[in-house]
Amino acid sequence: MTESSDAGVLEEAAYRQAVIDLLAAIAYGEISAFDRLAEDAKLAPTLADKLAVAKMACHEFAHVELLQSRIEELGADPFEAMAPFQAALDQFHEHTAPSDWYEGLVKAYVGDGLAADFYREIAAYLDPRTRDVVIASLADSGHSEFVVDRVRAGIASDARLGGRLALWGRRLMGEALSQGQRVAAERDALAAFLAGGVDRPGLDLAAIGRMFNRLTERHTERMSRLGLDS
Amino acid sequence: MTESSDAGVLEEAAYRQAVIDLLAAIAYGEISAFDRLAEDAKLAPTLADKLAVAKMACHEFAHVELLQSRIEELGADPFEAMAPFQAALDQFHEHTAPSDWYEGLVKAYVGDGLAADFYREIAAYLDPRTRDVVIASLADSGHSEFVVDRVRAGIASDARLGGRLALWGRRLMGEALSQGQRVAAERDALAAFLAGGVDRPGLDLAAIGRMFNRLTERHTERMSRLGLDS
Repeated sequence: MTESSDAGVLEEAAYRQAVIDLLAAIAYGEISAFDRLAEDAKLAPTLADKLAVAKMACHEFAHVELLQSRIEELGADPFEAMAPFQAALDQFHEHTAPSDWYEGLVKAYVGDGLAADFYREIAAYLDPRTRDVVIASLADSGHSEFVVDRVRAGIASDARLGGRLALWGRRLMGEALSQGQRVAAERDALAAFLAGGVDRPGLDLAAIGRMFNRLTERHTERMSRLGLDS
Repeated sequence: MTESSDAGVLEEAAYRQAVIDLLAAIAYGEISAFDRLAEDAKLAPTLADKLAVAKMACHEFAHVELLQSRIEELGADPFEAMAPFQAALDQFHEHTAPSDWYEGLVKAYVGDGLAADFYREIAAYLDPRTRDVVIASLADSGHSEFVVDRVRAGIASDARLGGRLALWGRRLMGEALSQGQRVAAERDALAAFLAGGVDRPGLDLAAIGRMFNRLTERHTERMSRLGLDS
């Protein structure tokens, strides 16, 4: 897509609204990830662990401004744009409040990984400028090593932990899917965008099915890196 | 002080221990400021306010790594170095848990301002390399405007708030002094450092008195910028 067709597609009101929705959903997701990680940091068994998680929290938060500015560039108020996504994301976090340090780690790793995979899939359908913003906002925090290391060590020293965390991973996936469906059902512009337009490729039902297969596969890979069945 | 006398003074075990103590106290202070601000962000009345406070939290946290590396350069483990200061700082925060959004804002502004003033006073007695690290770690988050604006608006719309927050400011100052004295009494190296050495200037009792006067004056200035009596 060239810069001029970029401007063209952005003039289309429905596309612009869908992009604003998408950026706002990601931004509010990063804000609630910050909240959740700052909260999880308190569960850390050592000060070094606490710092690692606080660093992840700030890493998520650092992306918010980039998304905010792009929403403003598109002529919308970032806070108004985020409002429709608060209920679904807050509810996701309420329904998946970690009961201990390990559940927090698994949630950070599995939840953020899943969200990043999903937004990366969608990014393929965006104008280049927005795509760059989305991709930049998903940059890995580089803390995966830390989580994998801690979770594997935890399982090694407590055999029952693996079973509990495997169930936890499945619950996270289920809750993410149900809140995702809720958002898709409520946000017409976003749903229409995913379906594509006359002059813009979109995802038909078969393509959406394939996308979910890819997301599930990558979720399974992440779980197994943690030493967990999915 | 030249780089060579720097090396000289750092070879002095007592000085090095005092510097490690100081850096560790600042570092743990920033970590607990992060915790506290991340917690306060939840009390924010709007999403924009929440973001402003989360940004302050991450700003504080961003300084920790710089301090950690300097502690490592001086041959100590940062986490072991921070341990002796946890009780005093945790207790300060327990005794001054904000009961609402405004108390959180005043605490962030007045508490961080006071700590920064104190460490800046001490920095004058440090070797240049350590002084640079300390000064950099105290860089203003640039959010003072935000706090002043919100607190003044709050007082304007609720006359009783000013009186309550003025009392709160006095309590913060009192609690900071009592925890500060506790640290000074427990950390011999730090206390000896403040007193100076044969070939190094220090603070005699009169100088310490003058320093406290300056700290109190600046505290009063901050309170009056917030529209509060101190």
